[in-house]
Amino acid sequence: MIENGSMHALATRLFPICRSLTGDGVRQTLQILQEHLPGLNIHEVPSGTPAFDWVVPEEWNIKGARLTGPDGEVIADFKDSNLHVLGYSTPVDLELSLEELQPHLHSLADHPTVIPYITSYYKRTWGFCIPHQQHQQLKPGKYRAVIDSTLKAGNLTYGELIIPGETTDEILLSAYICHPSMANNELSGPVVATWLAKYLQGLTSRRYTYRFVFIPETIGSLIYLSKHLDHLKKNVKAGFVLTCLGDDRAYSYMPSRLGDTLADKVALHTLTHKHPGHVRYTYLQRGSDERNYCWPGVDLPVCSIMRTRYGSFPEYHTSADDLSLITESGLQGGLDALRTCLNCLEKNRYYQATTLGEPQLSKRDLYPTTSVKNAAGYYSARLLVNIMAYCDGNHDLLDIANILNKPAWELFDAVQTLLDNGLLRPVK
Amino acid sequence: MIENGSMHALATRLFPICRSLTGDGVRQTLQILQEHLPGLNIHEVPSGTPAFDWVVPEEWNIKGARLTGPDGEVIADFKDSNLHVLGYSTPVDLELSLEELQPHLHSLADHPTVIPYITSYYKRTWGFCIPHQQHQQLKPGKYRAVIDSTLKAGNLTYGELIIPGETTDEILLSAYICHPSMANNELSGPVVATWLAKYLQGLTSRRYTYRFVFIPETIGSLIYLSKHLDHLKKNVKAGFVLTCLGDDRAYSYMPSRLGDTLADKVALHTLTHKHPGHVRYTYLQRGSDERNYCWPGVDLPVCSIMRTRYGSFPEYHTSADDLSLITESGLQGGLDALRTCLNCLEKNRYYQATTLGEPQLSKRDLYPTTSVKNAAGYYSARLLVNIMAYCDGNHDLLDIANILNKPAWELFDAVQTLLDNGLLRPVK
Amino acid sequence: MIENGSMHALATRLFPICRSLTGDGVRQTLQILQEHLPGLNIHEVPSGTPAFDWVVPEEWNIKGARLTGPDGEVIADFKDSNLHVLGYSTPVDLELSLEELQPHLHSLADHPTVIPYITSYYKRTWGFCIPHQQHQQLKPGKYRAVIDSTLKAGNLTYGELIIPGETTDEILLSAYICHPSMANNELSGPVVATWLAKYLQGLTSRRYTYRFVFIPETIGSLIYLSKHLDHLKKNVKAGFVLTCLGDDRAYSYMPSRLGDTLADKVALHTLTHKHPGHVRYTYLQRGSDERNYCWPGVDLPVCSIMRTRYGSFPEYHTSADDLSLITESGLQGGLDALRTCLNCLEKNRYYQATTLGEPQLSKRDLYPTTSVKNAAGYYSARLLVNIMAYCDGNHDLLDIANILNKPAWELFDAVQTLLDNGLLRPVK
Repeated sequence: MIENGSMHALATRLFPICRSLTGDGVRQTLQILQEHLPGLNIHEVPSGTPAFDWVVPEEWNIKGARLTGPDGEVIADFKDSNLHVLGYSTPVDLELSLEELQPHLHSLADHPTVIPYITSYYKRTWGFCIPHQQHQQLKPGKYRAVIDSTLKAGNLTYGELIIPGETTDEILLSAYICHPSMANNELSGPVVATWLAKYLQGLTSRRYTYRFVFIPETIGSLIYLSKHLDHLKKNVKAGFVLTCLGDDRAYSYMPSRLGDTLADKVALHTLTHKHPGHVRYTYLQRGSDERNYCWPGVDLPVCSIMRTRYGSFPEYHTSADDLSLITESGLQGGLDALRTCLNCLEKNRYYQATTLGEPQLSKRDLYPTTSVKNAAGYYSARLLVNIMAYCDGNHDLLDIANILNKPAWELFDAVQTLLDNGLLRPVK
Repeated sequence: MIENGSMHALATRLFPICRSLTGDGVRQTLQILQEHLPGLNIHEVPSGTPAFDWVVPEEWNIKGARLTGPDGEVIADFKDSNLHVLGYSTPVDLELSLEELQPHLHSLADHPTVIPYITSYYKRTWGFCIPHQQHQQLKPGKYRAVIDSTLKAGNLTYGELIIPGETTDEILLSAYICHPSMANNELSGPVVATWLAKYLQGLTSRRYTYRFVFIPETIGSLIYLSKHLDHLKKNVKAGFVLTCLGDDRAYSYMPSRLGDTLADKVALHTLTHKHPGHVRYTYLQRGSDERNYCWPGVDLPVCSIMRTRYGSFPEYHTSADDLSLITESGLQGGLDALRTCLNCLEKNRYYQATTLGEPQLSKRDLYPTTSVKNAAGYYSARLLVNIMAYCDGNHDLLDIANILNKPAWELFDAVQTLLDNGLLRPVK
Repeated sequence: MIENGSMHALATRLFPICRSLTGDGVRQTLQILQEHLPGLNIHEVPSGTPAFDWVVPEEWNIKGARLTGPDGEVIADFKDSNLHVLGYSTPVDLELSLEELQPHLHSLADHPTVIPYITSYYKRTWGFCIPHQQHQQLKPGKYRAVIDSTLKAGNLTYGELIIPGETTDEILLSAYICHPSMANNELSGPVVATWLAKYLQGLTSRRYTYRFVFIPETIGSLIYLSKHLDHLKKNVKAGFVLTCLGDDRAYSYMPSRLGDTLADKVALHTLTHKHPGHVRYTYLQRGSDERNYCWPGVDLPVCSIMRTRYGSFPEYHTSADDLSLITESGLQGGLDALRTCLNCLEKNRYYQATTLGEPQLSKRDLYPTTSVKNAAGYYSARLLVNIMAYCDGNHDLLDIANILNKPAWELFDAVQTLLDNGLLRPVK
């Protein structure tokens, strides 16, 4: 069943699924993405598999959970929101006093009406998350906490889609699929990734090979890097972490660690010309898988274009990051920005002008034959020679667009004209 | 016959000659320059000679031209202004209606009182250029168009003057001689070039060899490059296109393509200290033979110092760019700026201080012997050590002047004193 | 006899001694410093010894001097201030008229109440220095000038203290000891140097070897460089001229010649974070032994941190630069700034992160186990990964502190934690 074709509809279908680092919620999510992207491969990595400094944890699954109060009233039920349960909670069936319960209750004093999203992946414990105002009103008495979860040797699940191109040079696109019921700070990523993949599959030719990965955050990128590090270091020319791409409030940029990779160049060029009011963060404000992709010794050229960044919107990591926060136009804006980046990368080459000295454009009907000031064709001819003037093998098309202070996409036709006339040749 | 010795007088003598890409007007112009510069060699390049992507066109000559109206009245006569004829017009002797004539009439709606300067070098046609207000008043009827021109295999003519120096390192100075009756945007160039050559010939010694070329714009630089490319790439250390050097309104700078050549360094240094209010253009605003000298793969270190730049003054490429637009003081200002550049280049060296540690200036009578603050000689001694402090073989004299924030010419005496005392030696 | 333990007390003891380029005042000064620094070696260099472009002058000693007036009144007596005698005055015992005396009298019209400090090292003469207002009131008559000095073959005396460290990489600390009775512009230097040396000797370990030199300015650094140039060029990684470190008015920075050495990096980092209001001079405003240490071909990485710089305070080189100008807190501020620099240098390393990808901090108890926003430990964990993120072998700890916009000393504990956990290893 494919949704009605909108990105928001896909997000809506994925929203209720309880995703985590591992478990059936991740599998179910990937199977739904597979409906859109039949080439998506789903990989399973056994618990205990090492990934550099880390190890794949036990697989977590949950069927239900409920916290009831002294009068039998339901305080929190997993059925209502999978955020009510602390991620990776151990199974429990206990009666306990409010005092004994308190260390297992989580709420946010500064966001009193929302359920916080909290996990404890690497220390065994259990807990419930509720709105702070509800938390404040709990009265003394006997509470019952039931969590019907399992934590045992299993697998970590991730998806991978390779869209081949004319060269083995790769663009990496990475989205995460481990947050339960988070709209901007999760589903916007895999949903935009899916649409981007469909767009690329629809192109008649691609210079780059595209590698999409759908992984649990952090441990997923580490697992993926540990399996493919040499290949990725050799082939990936640019990459993007796809996250927070769905709201309508901002465009923003998170650089790679060193800040001057091809990915950064195209992201900054695109945002500068399409969204001049965008926000620029520093790498010190990072928070997703660029942490691993850019780690010293890994050094992949990976940055992010986002709408409103994780940590920068009040709904972040709470039940308020819901389907009303992301919009079709918000998702479309994120998709467009990334599609523009990829289009620029496809066209971005180092060229060499083939003539010594300016070519005679008039004999190719590329120049007004009469020297009247501002004659028709004057400006387009000027654009042609301005482009060629920097085609010295040391400036790529993005550099030239930056020198000319024009969007790269306004140069594509001119470059094609020059190629068609044999006046440029690609050099790398 | 040499004029009364002023640059303006030479421009006045050259003004009426009908120059173009080729033809007797060019030869006549060069012969007059030869009166000033007996060493000037005049070269002829046959029509059809290839020059990279171009070919030398047929030679164009014109004896006369007249457009008469229905009542026999003279609309435009070549005798009055050689701008009246479209450059490179084919011969014609036709009667035709106003409607048939219109495609052959050129005028400027936004400059209604002047004759525009228009050419059609590479597409065979003919035309007359007249003021727009005259154009507007033409009445229907029979017109007669007579152009007594020839277009046939001949030669392209250019001039070349080599003034030898102590080394084979060269400074290139390039002026164009293809515009009929244009004062600032043509004659100021060859006239200042002539005075610059005379100045250099008067020096008792020259470190650099100077290469002056007087060429038709564009095709001339291409021809010249195609004949001498390897030599020029090997020997030319700095170069200047000499154009628009005659009015009194501005000083301006057109960089080389890469912007950081020795020519750019000395031009910016000179303008910064002599004319701090100068205008700086970008290479995207270029418009003369730097287009070819700086082309990728040619890469000569060529920029321009100008008074008011081509395209930036309202009289540009019209009959208003006449002898009243350029002044002797305007030409002198242009000459002085370039002469300063050449003087700086002559003196510009990389030096090495010959002592380890500060030298003892007092034993050479270069330092006040009593340590009174601000004693006589303190500041000149300070200048000496400040210069030496940067004579490490990595900073040339222009770099040092920039560090000291002083004009290079204020350092010449001090450098000479240091050389005379054996405290510096040139290293390259 | 060691003073009461304050830097100001040591300065007070040294103040009355008549120091000069050479002579017993220098020896006496070094012997007092030796009481504090028993390892201090005192070296004697014979007159006539060459030092690059210079030669060690004759040794100068003085027992007394007096200028008396027509009525027998004492105009100036060496007993009252050793500034009264022009430095390096030849012996004299003369009666002369006021007119004959005038060329030998020095005073400052713009500082009429103070005795100027004046020398004539390299031209034999004699003189007296007095306040300008006293000078103005001298009446005609017979004056008697007596200077009981000697100038003969002897030695130049300097001190050297090597405090060994774990490596042969060295930090050079240079102070001068040739100004008689100058407090800020002399004694603050050797006094702070002494305290710095005592501090370093008290450390349980030192990575760097520290080289302190106490020399007469200019000729002393030249002599020292001429004896040790190869060693210093090979081993010195950073150095500081210690001067003008005692008043309370300012902090200031004098760069090395090239401005980007390790010494400059640590000095700027320290001043930026500890004293953001500090003054930055350019190398053109230099005035002490960095002139020789940074000379082309010598090129030691030497800069200065100062309180108020020589030449920038009105008391400079006069009797007003006395013990009231420097304070214990002023000296302590200078000492602290330098001690901070040395501490930073000791800790400054290039590190490499030992994991690929972020390490799992939680398994080392370095990360909050529950993902609550802003949990305790979140910010310190963030600091750990931010440091590691730039430990790529290309950024030293000062670079990383600059990227993080934090003082390096706020990173020391975190770096130690990372080293203790095996997450970093030093690479150079």
